[in-house]
Amino acid sequence: MPTWKLTLEYDGAAFCGWQVQPNGRSVQAALETALGSLHSGDAIRATAAGRTDAGVHARGQVVSFSTPRELGQGAYLRGLNSLLPAQVAVVAAERAPVDFDARRWARGKEYEYRIVAGVARSPLREGRYWHLFKALDRDAMASAAAQLVGRHDFGAFRASDCDSTHAVRELTSIDVTASGPVLIVTVRGTAFLKHMVRNLVGTLVEVGQGRRAPQSMAALLASKDRTKAGRTAPAHGLYLNRVFYGEGPRGPADDGDE
Amino acid sequence: MPTWKLTLEYDGAAFCGWQVQPNGRSVQAALETALGSLHSGDAIRATAAGRTDAGVHARGQVVSFSTPRELGQGAYLRGLNSLLPAQVAVVAAERAPVDFDARRWARGKEYEYRIVAGVARSPLREGRYWHLFKALDRDAMASAAAQLVGRHDFGAFRASDCDSTHAVRELTSIDVTASGPVLIVTVRGTAFLKHMVRNLVGTLVEVGQGRRAPQSMAALLASKDRTKAGRTAPAHGLYLNRVFYGEGPRGPADDGDE
Repeated sequence: MPTWKLTLEYDGAAFCGWQVQPNGRSVQAALETALGSLHSGDAIRATAAGRTDAGVHARGQVVSFSTPRELGQGAYLRGLNSLLPAQVAVVAAERAPVDFDARRWARGKEYEYRIVAGVARSPLREGRYWHLFKALDRDAMASAAAQLVGRHDFGAFRASDCDSTHAVRELTSIDVTASGPVLIVTVRGTAFLKHMVRNLVGTLVEVGQGRRAPQSMAALLASKDRTKAGRTAPAHGLYLNRVFYGEGPRGPADDGDE
Repeated sequence: MPTWKLTLEYDGAAFCGWQVQPNGRSVQAALETALGSLHSGDAIRATAAGRTDAGVHARGQVVSFSTPRELGQGAYLRGLNSLLPAQVAVVAAERAPVDFDARRWARGKEYEYRIVAGVARSPLREGRYWHLFKALDRDAMASAAAQLVGRHDFGAFRASDCDSTHAVRELTSIDVTASGPVLIVTVRGTAFLKHMVRNLVGTLVEVGQGRRAPQSMAALLASKDRTKAGRTAPAHGLYLNRVFYGEGPRGPADDGDE
């Protein structure tokens, strides 16, 4: 069956996350409904590179689906966009290898976390940034972030209900940039544990607030103890920016995401 | 009476514009209501640097007000922010000279116009950018924009119901920058006619679409004919970024806005 690769942008505030839930409006259900309408009612299952949580935004979520009745790029781009709700859009559509699977083939992802700090409120950033009243020390955060890059056991940063078999993951980069009151944390890695980026950001923010030493990251990683890390940063500051692919599925040594 | 200067950020989508209207929720009414509550019911009038239209956003609108019962910076920053609706915030508050008037003292303003072009849709930019399906030629737009800088009669770019006595205004810069599908037009000038920035942007977009030659701007200015310029760009892409002040009110030769 021909397989297609779609790139999606969505406003996480409108959804209960990627995955279909008994109660709540999921991105997956919205897309599968639109795909069904386009294919005269055929049930089509869509697989996403990462199952974003409720409230998490995406600029470049990647989705794969197969269909015996292939409609072509115009239908998957313009057709789906006319059927989807305003809060989700297909930004690219291309034919993929028949065995392409957006989840199993993903070699890495880039997430961005947006913070606005040191201002009373910011109406134009409402729902898109984590708002903090006090300014953050960017340099301290960047110094702490540098210690997290590499292959580590990220057990201290996994959600308590994360069901991955182990917590070893590789972060290839974490950049912390600041411009006025806005601070952006950009994280790239091969794969991520449940809530891992939000737990990393929550911990880095405590460093930026002077409540945790930048050089304490090594001991925190070594502890593998979730209760020793910072709070989980809110979902509405997180964006799935990009998913990276190579030729074929990733090897068995590389873990997938939660 | 002591006079204060407030800097406001607001999401224009929530308001019928700055100015109080018989029907509709204005930024001015929201602010004056909050100021009244803070001053135990005293009626306080607020004057804005520019009367933004319905839907126009602000990052740095400047407002002045006078009160016989001065409350101090904490009240005007934290107090007002706790009373104002979520879509408007005070981002700075400072005491000003007693005769300070946000409108009559304004020496210049910076507006930003945001466009997303060449993508099907962009849910995360919905309501904050003018969306155009086809990509724009940035270089052609920048070339046309350069011809508009300087002191000119902008009659071709004023709204039909603009009631300014004449249309001579000075634009100090227009920058057109592009990054991926996003195009930003940043306009600085001493003062602006009604709808002037939106009419300039609407005309520059026609240049970017190849429907109007970049070198046609001089003739368009010379015509002073509104019907010869482009359409009015939608309000939701426009941001009042900054207002510039000097010492005291501007001279009689410099026109105000609207």
